[in-house]
Amino acid sequence: MKGVILSLYPRVGIIDLSHQIPPQDVRYASFFLRACIPYFPPEAIHVVVVDPGVGTSRALLYVEIDGHRILAPDNGCWTGLIQRSKPVTVLRLTESRFWRQPLSSTFHGRDILAPVAASLSLGEDPRHLGVPFEEWIRLDIKSPTTKDDLLTGEVIFIDHFGNLFTNIPGPDFERICRHRVSIKIGDQTVTRHVRTYGEASAGTPVALVSSMELLEISVTNGSAAKQLGADIGTPVVVQVIERIPEGHK
Amino acid sequence: MKGVILSLYPRVGIIDLSHQIPPQDVRYASFFLRACIPYFPPEAIHVVVVDPGVGTSRALLYVEIDGHRILAPDNGCWTGLIQRSKPVTVLRLTESRFWRQPLSSTFHGRDILAPVAASLSLGEDPRHLGVPFEEWIRLDIKSPTTKDDLLTGEVIFIDHFGNLFTNIPGPDFERICRHRVSIKIGDQTVTRHVRTYGEASAGTPVALVSSMELLEISVTNGSAAKQLGADIGTPVVVQVIERIPEGHK
Amino acid sequence: MKGVILSLYPRVGIIDLSHQIPPQDVRYASFFLRACIPYFPPEAIHVVVVDPGVGTSRALLYVEIDGHRILAPDNGCWTGLIQRSKPVTVLRLTESRFWRQPLSSTFHGRDILAPVAASLSLGEDPRHLGVPFEEWIRLDIKSPTTKDDLLTGEVIFIDHFGNLFTNIPGPDFERICRHRVSIKIGDQTVTRHVRTYGEASAGTPVALVSSMELLEISVTNGSAAKQLGADIGTPVVVQVIERIPEGHK
Repeated sequence: MKGVILSLYPRVGIIDLSHQIPPQDVRYASFFLRACIPYFPPEAIHVVVVDPGVGTSRALLYVEIDGHRILAPDNGCWTGLIQRSKPVTVLRLTESRFWRQPLSSTFHGRDILAPVAASLSLGEDPRHLGVPFEEWIRLDIKSPTTKDDLLTGEVIFIDHFGNLFTNIPGPDFERICRHRVSIKIGDQTVTRHVRTYGEASAGTPVALVSSMELLEISVTNGSAAKQLGADIGTPVVVQVIERIPEGHK
Repeated sequence: MKGVILSLYPRVGIIDLSHQIPPQDVRYASFFLRACIPYFPPEAIHVVVVDPGVGTSRALLYVEIDGHRILAPDNGCWTGLIQRSKPVTVLRLTESRFWRQPLSSTFHGRDILAPVAASLSLGEDPRHLGVPFEEWIRLDIKSPTTKDDLLTGEVIFIDHFGNLFTNIPGPDFERICRHRVSIKIGDQTVTRHVRTYGEASAGTPVALVSSMELLEISVTNGSAAKQLGADIGTPVVVQVIERIPEGHK
Repeated sequence: MKGVILSLYPRVGIIDLSHQIPPQDVRYASFFLRACIPYFPPEAIHVVVVDPGVGTSRALLYVEIDGHRILAPDNGCWTGLIQRSKPVTVLRLTESRFWRQPLSSTFHGRDILAPVAASLSLGEDPRHLGVPFEEWIRLDIKSPTTKDDLLTGEVIFIDHFGNLFTNIPGPDFERICRHRVSIKIGDQTVTRHVRTYGEASAGTPVALVSSMELLEISVTNGSAAKQLGADIGTPVVVQVIERIPEGHK
């Protein structure tokens, strides 16, 4: 893919974002893209090749979302970036004059997405690449339940340190964590909450609000996934067990 | 190596092609280079540091092959790119004024190939770098046997999805796969052939022609290597067991 | 981090040095930086994010050392680069106007080091970024003992080939290895010393002077770590057992 891009635009800058997305793991890709893309400038063209449906009738898409431009298979991988009330532009790539020929059936990243990315970087108008497309797939991401005294969610991502990212919004946790709360990950209990990893001694499981503004469960200098036996989908429950009145600590 | 290159040519673009070649695996490197280098523009200088013979009397080479320029140890890693009737230029790097000093005995990638690559990128004439060299090593890659009704080969590469790449040319397979064929990988039988991964349901082993124009054995959303117990060198046999006359399906 | 840097300086070149430092392993990072940074040109800004103390009161530093510029947490990771009689400049990053807002508690690489690196690349005077800082942490790296007939040290690094790097200086080994020496790694004995890997047959453990000018124990086309059962901290002892007079071999 890098060779195809550089053949069309030799001086373009190419950045590796990750080669660690597990094979065909669209949900992992979705979480990863949500964590990274917002920090990039609008000049960037993001190319996503997590594509279990390569060569079938699944569409390939050009997406504009909050000023970011993404080329990706239509499997929902980018839909974690959708924000309420912000418009999304989606085109289906149809104009094969921008593609490599001959076209393989098993590597559309190299043969379609890479040359289209180069064309976009060179200034091609995206409307020349394809046609408006409405029926794109939206990834079904479980929503947490956030009541007054009870937050219920699950582990949605595990990073390479073994930190557990949940789908519970950080602000909801911050709202209730001044009270005495119970935090359960599966059948394990986490008793401390902190602002950052280093506040706890090594080996202690802690809850904190992550750099992605989500409730995170971490073990300082260790792996929370291993120590708590947690995996993607493990339930997470935060419950107020004693209310502390305002003014107390 | 990147530091040495940038010290000589601060604005050059450096691309990582792979850090996943298994240690000292010249055959893996050969397959990898054959899959990637043809897609790069002629401006690229390819530097290969799979070098089990570092520091011995093995030569270091500058190679020009079909417009591509490669710097590599003389262990055959680049010879998978040789095509019938296309000329190959090979020089042995001898001009130590282009090298880093002092020269280590164990890291010629840093001390010789990196600075020579920078010099080439800056426009140095390759004929100044060394002398014509004839006795280069050619990797002994097993050829498949392709008869009218019988294709015999082996697994030559396994990618990180567990897909098995064979040395059987895709066009030979396409010629006979319209008939009823038996496909054997070791003692396992693959009964389906498809155009792309997604045509089969998850878990089904299938045969298809890969993006490298070779017969590939794959398991949709799984690992064919694990499921079929196959490895590099596992025999692959495709045999016509019933001819379908023209016009039938 | 790459997105934050490119947002401030879209045309800057970004190089990946390693994504293989084990989590929170400051000693590994230290060895790695010592092996790489000296080869880079002074234009490079090195950003280190091995940061077990993120979000605590640990400082973030700007360091100038032998013409190289480093941004890193104050955990000693860069102190392996200190050389006798060469001055070191250390500032503590305090000027939050160069940082991303809002500032997370768990990802200062993205929120502080990345934007500060971009500012430096754009020409910002480092003295505007923070204040002189004296109390930085120096990594306590064990020193080897080098007597006339006896060198005592330990394994300090294992690369991905399984080569064992010791803290015994190469010149000390070269001084005595012309005599008959015993080389012990833990309770294992290495009987050969060579100039480079390929001089021994596959599977033979050998001692040699590495590309970092340290005594290295290696197994040609194998893993010395596995074969000798060695790990970080395994003792290494080189002892002259019979002196060979000058002029003999």
